[in-house]
Amino acid sequence: MAHGSVLSSGAAETIVKGETGMKIGMIGLGKMGGNMATRLARAGVTVVGHDHSPEVVSSWVASAGIVGASSVDALIAALPAPRVIWLMLPSGPITEEQLVGLSQRLAPGDVVVDGGNSNYHDSERRAALLAEKGIGFMDAGTSGGVWGLENGYCLMVGATPEVARQVRPFLEILAPHPERGWAHVGPVGAGHYVKMVHNGIEYGMMQSLAEGLALLQGKTAFDLDLAKITDLWGEGSVVRSWLLELTADALRKGVDWNQMAAVVADSGEGRWTAIEAIEQGIPAPVLSLALHLRFQSQDRDALTFKLLSVMRHAFGGHAIQASGQ
Amino acid sequence: MAHGSVLSSGAAETIVKGETGMKIGMIGLGKMGGNMATRLARAGVTVVGHDHSPEVVSSWVASAGIVGASSVDALIAALPAPRVIWLMLPSGPITEEQLVGLSQRLAPGDVVVDGGNSNYHDSERRAALLAEKGIGFMDAGTSGGVWGLENGYCLMVGATPEVARQVRPFLEILAPHPERGWAHVGPVGAGHYVKMVHNGIEYGMMQSLAEGLALLQGKTAFDLDLAKITDLWGEGSVVRSWLLELTADALRKGVDWNQMAAVVADSGEGRWTAIEAIEQGIPAPVLSLALHLRFQSQDRDALTFKLLSVMRHAFGGHAIQASGQ
Amino acid sequence: MAHGSVLSSGAAETIVKGETGMKIGMIGLGKMGGNMATRLARAGVTVVGHDHSPEVVSSWVASAGIVGASSVDALIAALPAPRVIWLMLPSGPITEEQLVGLSQRLAPGDVVVDGGNSNYHDSERRAALLAEKGIGFMDAGTSGGVWGLENGYCLMVGATPEVARQVRPFLEILAPHPERGWAHVGPVGAGHYVKMVHNGIEYGMMQSLAEGLALLQGKTAFDLDLAKITDLWGEGSVVRSWLLELTADALRKGVDWNQMAAVVADSGEGRWTAIEAIEQGIPAPVLSLALHLRFQSQDRDALTFKLLSVMRHAFGGHAIQASGQ
Amino acid sequence: MAHGSVLSSGAAETIVKGETGMKIGMIGLGKMGGNMATRLARAGVTVVGHDHSPEVVSSWVASAGIVGASSVDALIAALPAPRVIWLMLPSGPITEEQLVGLSQRLAPGDVVVDGGNSNYHDSERRAALLAEKGIGFMDAGTSGGVWGLENGYCLMVGATPEVARQVRPFLEILAPHPERGWAHVGPVGAGHYVKMVHNGIEYGMMQSLAEGLALLQGKTAFDLDLAKITDLWGEGSVVRSWLLELTADALRKGVDWNQMAAVVADSGEGRWTAIEAIEQGIPAPVLSLALHLRFQSQDRDALTFKLLSVMRHAFGGHAIQASGQ
Repeated sequence: MAHGSVLSSGAAETIVKGETGMKIGMIGLGKMGGNMATRLARAGVTVVGHDHSPEVVSSWVASAGIVGASSVDALIAALPAPRVIWLMLPSGPITEEQLVGLSQRLAPGDVVVDGGNSNYHDSERRAALLAEKGIGFMDAGTSGGVWGLENGYCLMVGATPEVARQVRPFLEILAPHPERGWAHVGPVGAGHYVKMVHNGIEYGMMQSLAEGLALLQGKTAFDLDLAKITDLWGEGSVVRSWLLELTADALRKGVDWNQMAAVVADSGEGRWTAIEAIEQGIPAPVLSLALHLRFQSQDRDALTFKLLSVMRHAFGGHAIQASGQ
Repeated sequence: MAHGSVLSSGAAETIVKGETGMKIGMIGLGKMGGNMATRLARAGVTVVGHDHSPEVVSSWVASAGIVGASSVDALIAALPAPRVIWLMLPSGPITEEQLVGLSQRLAPGDVVVDGGNSNYHDSERRAALLAEKGIGFMDAGTSGGVWGLENGYCLMVGATPEVARQVRPFLEILAPHPERGWAHVGPVGAGHYVKMVHNGIEYGMMQSLAEGLALLQGKTAFDLDLAKITDLWGEGSVVRSWLLELTADALRKGVDWNQMAAVVADSGEGRWTAIEAIEQGIPAPVLSLALHLRFQSQDRDALTFKLLSVMRHAFGGHAIQASGQ
Repeated sequence: MAHGSVLSSGAAETIVKGETGMKIGMIGLGKMGGNMATRLARAGVTVVGHDHSPEVVSSWVASAGIVGASSVDALIAALPAPRVIWLMLPSGPITEEQLVGLSQRLAPGDVVVDGGNSNYHDSERRAALLAEKGIGFMDAGTSGGVWGLENGYCLMVGATPEVARQVRPFLEILAPHPERGWAHVGPVGAGHYVKMVHNGIEYGMMQSLAEGLALLQGKTAFDLDLAKITDLWGEGSVVRSWLLELTADALRKGVDWNQMAAVVADSGEGRWTAIEAIEQGIPAPVLSLALHLRFQSQDRDALTFKLLSVMRHAFGGHAIQASGQ
Repeated sequence: MAHGSVLSSGAAETIVKGETGMKIGMIGLGKMGGNMATRLARAGVTVVGHDHSPEVVSSWVASAGIVGASSVDALIAALPAPRVIWLMLPSGPITEEQLVGLSQRLAPGDVVVDGGNSNYHDSERRAALLAEKGIGFMDAGTSGGVWGLENGYCLMVGATPEVARQVRPFLEILAPHPERGWAHVGPVGAGHYVKMVHNGIEYGMMQSLAEGLALLQGKTAFDLDLAKITDLWGEGSVVRSWLLELTADALRKGVDWNQMAAVVADSGEGRWTAIEAIEQGIPAPVLSLALHLRFQSQDRDALTFKLLSVMRHAFGGHAIQASGQ
């Protein structure tokens, strides 16, 4: 059976190998998973992909030359043991459910890689669950966003040495370079831990940049051009960074500020980083503040601020601004 | 000329003394100045009051039994030397203008008290200006808000010992108690400095209380009654404080949150405290943050948050929330 | 059997009632528990107290007229059903162990009050555990510190209405006033939740005060007297508060700063407040920062700061200060 | 007179032109100024350099082929009008003194460039001072540190269009590329303003990275290798940046943490950014906090923390840790 078709259970044996002879299962073909499957397929890996949406599977089959699987069972059947199955799913119950299902269906010697943004405590627990069945586990913190397809992904992996050896050939393809851009940073859990902290740092760096740009914008007397300045800082300055480059690109293309709500989402990893700092008793004031500022942006009622106005009125008779003004 | 009339220039000699025989000039009869004049008048001091609004002067003449002066010249003329003239004006150019005017019209031995929220650097400069003419100066940081009329004012005064002695009888009346609630804390400037820091602390305490109450409100499963809890904390808790009492009172009376904008004003002293910390290189992270959070509340455009959303979109393809949603 | 003796198991029936006829068991006779037992005993309650240290039991028997129990069994036997047993123990495993033990020994209709600083999630879980046996539970957040014996304790209680009714007579004695200073704020868990937030606020208020005082101290040109100023602020100022009073008292008595390490401990509740804010997604930037600053004070290695120096050296050639300088 | 000699006043006419025929004066030959002079000289510019230390002048004459000037007068005399004179001096009184001196000695049409880290308000004032004499001024915020010699400097310049045209050929050499890495961002003052904000951002980014790395280090169970992880993050991660690269380099070479004091210096620009935010009322909470954390690192007495311990002792009887423990 050729690339470009969707397998149903039972049709597995006939799969055509990619050029490298390497095979991998990819569960979850969203923006990240689909792009990673594509990067692997382009490198000659046979990627058997599954997603809960058949349309999504078909779309990647057509565009990326992966082999589609209509079910997890079909995906498992399409891969010879020992298998490597990569999960690229939203963290939380969806990942949990797949992990538990795989623990019941895979064979000893198979390996499950969780490339999603799972909490490292969950990864430690899940690795223990799979280990009872002789199944290996790797937590692979994955950074690179929508740019990873072309540039490669930064992969921070936690696993036993044996599992790391088994998955290594795939990491070498997914990373920007075979020898760089991925690293086996420690035991199970360490990969997601390092990715978590990475995202915590990301929050702080983003907030730092944004505050600075707001200070440029605020100095109206100078009529500063933010696109020009962020572009300038990309050359030789101390703050040059990928986030700065992306910001410069976006500003150059133009942003319609009026169409945007001043609301910033946060994600599990930013929160977990802040909680980890508290539980370890390690000072992380700026990373934590960057998170709380996102909460502030999400807080439509802003009871805190209203309470401050109430207090000011109470002790000083200061006027309270009416809503809608 | 009796209490209850407004003096114009020239009519000064005939003023009737208060019971104590003490006389003071009060320039600026806003909420604070008017109440302070009233407190002095009730204690038997003859208060000659002036305000740029004749209606305001008339109103305090009627309600508080002070002597009105239609001009600063009339006020000066109504007081025998050596005079004590208390300014209770908005800080900045209005205070500056009055100070300069008084420096040209008062006599050696007279004293000007600035009871407003002036920057302590200005007070040091102004004292030097007056000293050239032999006129004394006191900076009297004044706290107590709208409650001061009944409870007395907390007065933090900076002056030379001689000036402090001259003004002391009035401080003893304005303070909650003759011996307590006012203090000569240091040389000229020290009074406004201490008041400035007082307000900086106020920002931090207010923000602390407000954040805590928002956490109570946010725990909807417990359906907590903020009025009840703030009232409870007033008895025996570690956080009991006047700000807590005022908050409890306001919550008990009921607040219509929907009618309020989530915008909190800031004032000179909060800003000066934060700047002072920077200039001295003394860590004041919480006081500074409380100030920046007020700025955040005032920032309708919130460019910072929009920039964060732009960055998240750029690196991760995350959706940007549209305005109006 | 009279007050002032220590009961062993079996001697329970003969206990002499206090004047009120009210009886309570108190487990944990540390600084807090012993003082609370004393306040109850002074009010005519028969308090049967137990502590893991027999010496501690004897000491409170002698000083406070409570009835000592050499074991929990003896304490249970000394109280007629339905019993009220108050735990005043360090939060964590010690409280857990006692709760589990009591769940196995108490009778339906008895009530356990946890007056310690337990996490509210634990309280919810423990209440469910006891409820299976028909035993009631109250979480009573207790504030007031070493001053509670004389002034009364601020009690924030979570319980069902039935349990609240059963414990109320004791709350009326422990609180500063029968009608004020205690409140039934919500269901089980709500008491410890409100106490947790109270302590979070405490962190922010303390840090605010301390930063302000450091700014006073730092202005050496004014040679400000911190004891005098904190005392002054106690009268009529906006920041007047119990924490300020305590600070003024301590400063008046004199503090030997050189003998003190610049290290501030933190406690479970400060951490839980910060974690709760993150889990609820409610902004609490100042309360969180106050916690992280305590972590900073505890961080002897201060790797963060060393890393900053390493970076400065790397990009700008700036000198790194050697340790010991 | 050839490259490699030191000019004294009067010997100016005979100077040999560099290959480009371009000439510039450079006052201040420290680490930054000397390297910039070298970069210009390598590109064929005749650089006449002066420093208050004759040894420093001689050293750059020897190593970089610049022309040394033993005095500012000699330097002026060595350059034909209209001159471009670049100052690379510590901000503050030293820059002020040179500026005033040059304003008295230069001719209309000459231009002074301040490449140091001056406050933008000073630059505005100085430009006005020079303009009275018909002398042009450019403020050129310069980033790039010790790496600028090879990589080029990021130059943020504020000036009138005329002055910008006059200095442009030198900017094209100093920058990483003739067309990129320098920009005329606005009127006089704008260059130093943009550089100031750049440094403010730098503080926030550095602190973010450092906090994250401390969280990695703190997780001892994973025994994470900071050098390996920072190196890894350099490939494809969201936080990749020059600061990260420098950190990775330093960690790879090895850092003796025990030899370092946990003290981080701050500089004018970090402070000015924070003050600017306050004066504009623009929220910059993270940039400000990063600054205050440096203050904390510098605060040996840490009165704030000691006061917190005093308060904890006062209300809760908590032990105060003794110094030296």
